[in-house]
Amino acid sequence: MKLVSFSAADGKLRPGALLDQENLIVDLSDEFPDTLAVIAAGITKVENISDHPGYKLSGVKLHAPLANPPRVFAIGLNYRDHAKESNMALPKLPVVFFKLTPSIIGTGETVILPKNSAQPDYEAEFAFVIGKGGYRIGAADWKQHVYGYTIVNDVSARDVQLASSQWTLGKSFPTFCPMGPAIVTADDIPNPHELNISLSIDGELLQNSNTRELIFPIPELIEYISSITPLLPGDVVSTGTPAGVGLGRSPQRWIQPGETMTVTIEGLGSLVNPTAAE
Amino acid sequence: MKLVSFSAADGKLRPGALLDQENLIVDLSDEFPDTLAVIAAGITKVENISDHPGYKLSGVKLHAPLANPPRVFAIGLNYRDHAKESNMALPKLPVVFFKLTPSIIGTGETVILPKNSAQPDYEAEFAFVIGKGGYRIGAADWKQHVYGYTIVNDVSARDVQLASSQWTLGKSFPTFCPMGPAIVTADDIPNPHELNISLSIDGELLQNSNTRELIFPIPELIEYISSITPLLPGDVVSTGTPAGVGLGRSPQRWIQPGETMTVTIEGLGSLVNPTAAE
Repeated sequence: MKLVSFSAADGKLRPGALLDQENLIVDLSDEFPDTLAVIAAGITKVENISDHPGYKLSGVKLHAPLANPPRVFAIGLNYRDHAKESNMALPKLPVVFFKLTPSIIGTGETVILPKNSAQPDYEAEFAFVIGKGGYRIGAADWKQHVYGYTIVNDVSARDVQLASSQWTLGKSFPTFCPMGPAIVTADDIPNPHELNISLSIDGELLQNSNTRELIFPIPELIEYISSITPLLPGDVVSTGTPAGVGLGRSPQRWIQPGETMTVTIEGLGSLVNPTAAE
Repeated sequence: MKLVSFSAADGKLRPGALLDQENLIVDLSDEFPDTLAVIAAGITKVENISDHPGYKLSGVKLHAPLANPPRVFAIGLNYRDHAKESNMALPKLPVVFFKLTPSIIGTGETVILPKNSAQPDYEAEFAFVIGKGGYRIGAADWKQHVYGYTIVNDVSARDVQLASSQWTLGKSFPTFCPMGPAIVTADDIPNPHELNISLSIDGELLQNSNTRELIFPIPELIEYISSITPLLPGDVVSTGTPAGVGLGRSPQRWIQPGETMTVTIEGLGSLVNPTAAE
């Protein structure tokens, strides 16, 4: 199932299931107030589609598939090639920071480049969403805790991020967490550690890798994080970005106003965000 | 006003105003579901005390005065003497990390020392609570945005914290964010930058300083954080700890099970937490 948040003519945000072969969204708002409630209930398919109202995809606006996760955990330096281009040593443990949740936007929405950064950068990331929470989850039990997968663009103001030892703020300007277009439930992705991931800007391919290159794959991330803090239903863990970010290029390449960033992950679709100056 | 969260015999969590000369709590739950709603409404005094139910302080349990802040921002190395004892350079900008909010507990509640840390440490901190939110707040306007003040003990698993470049997780084990006993509204604290702050364990004084020693005082913290991310009503900003933490002592001194930590700040009372092994 592809879980989405959408709004129709009345503007109300609704949870839905996207049937993309039919270009149809099944409205789940009669049973669930939002997608977080769908995730917490563990719903991964719609039993009786005809029992729910339907909307044509062309007639609605998609929003971020999860506007209010408890937290967005983000992993730094989790692809070998990206750690190298950042001139940072390979981590022995996952490096965990956060994207503040008010930064979340959906596909099609505009990333605003803040006036107090001269170095806005992109990061294509594969993310997983926790279904059943837990404390001290063993790596072998990871599949019991993953609800599904989505795409995150970990937009980063490099000058702000790297002016401090702590990265979260410089990665949390408003609009800096594009997410979507949907959360694809785990049963639809047979092997999440074998997915092509790429980012292009205005058609120029800038990142191109595969989730098999992750240094810490999903089981290890779940075990490590949950050994410290209980994971909660709806927590998003964005697993880090491969090589090719603007910071690591020669010459360095920062996001410009008027560009369009597209992150594509096999089986998850494309997350498309134009940019504009503040 | 001293804003508290409390529960009486029925166990329900209620917002209240503590009148400590009378040892009485005025129950505000008829108007507000929780203390976050009181803060968001900007309530700093109770107009007609006799209109509300009252509880004797001795008959209730105090909880953390704010169980569900949007975020707990925490500032690293914000006292000159603590930066020195940590062998870290004085920061040019505030160093901002987070305490995950499920870690919050109140006064009297037990800090659990996790089995996967051998170096649990204490940090006495003065914290302020945002009333009116805002983006790009100027330092001069800080008083318009501060609802009140409280005490935080920024409990830290040093081995976990310092195994990573990013500190948030190692400071966010369950129970690692004692807060309280109350949020004292700003009108009751004439000068928040002139308050004695101390921490003792079982009567031994280990930290003893004054908020005048803050490298980045409240106006600069509000300006810096809000230049990046909008501050929200109920956000807590814990301003950092003075010298004397266990990490900086010779020999180093870690929290042991069965101890009692007491943080005292002039005008804000005392935050008392026993400890226990997991």
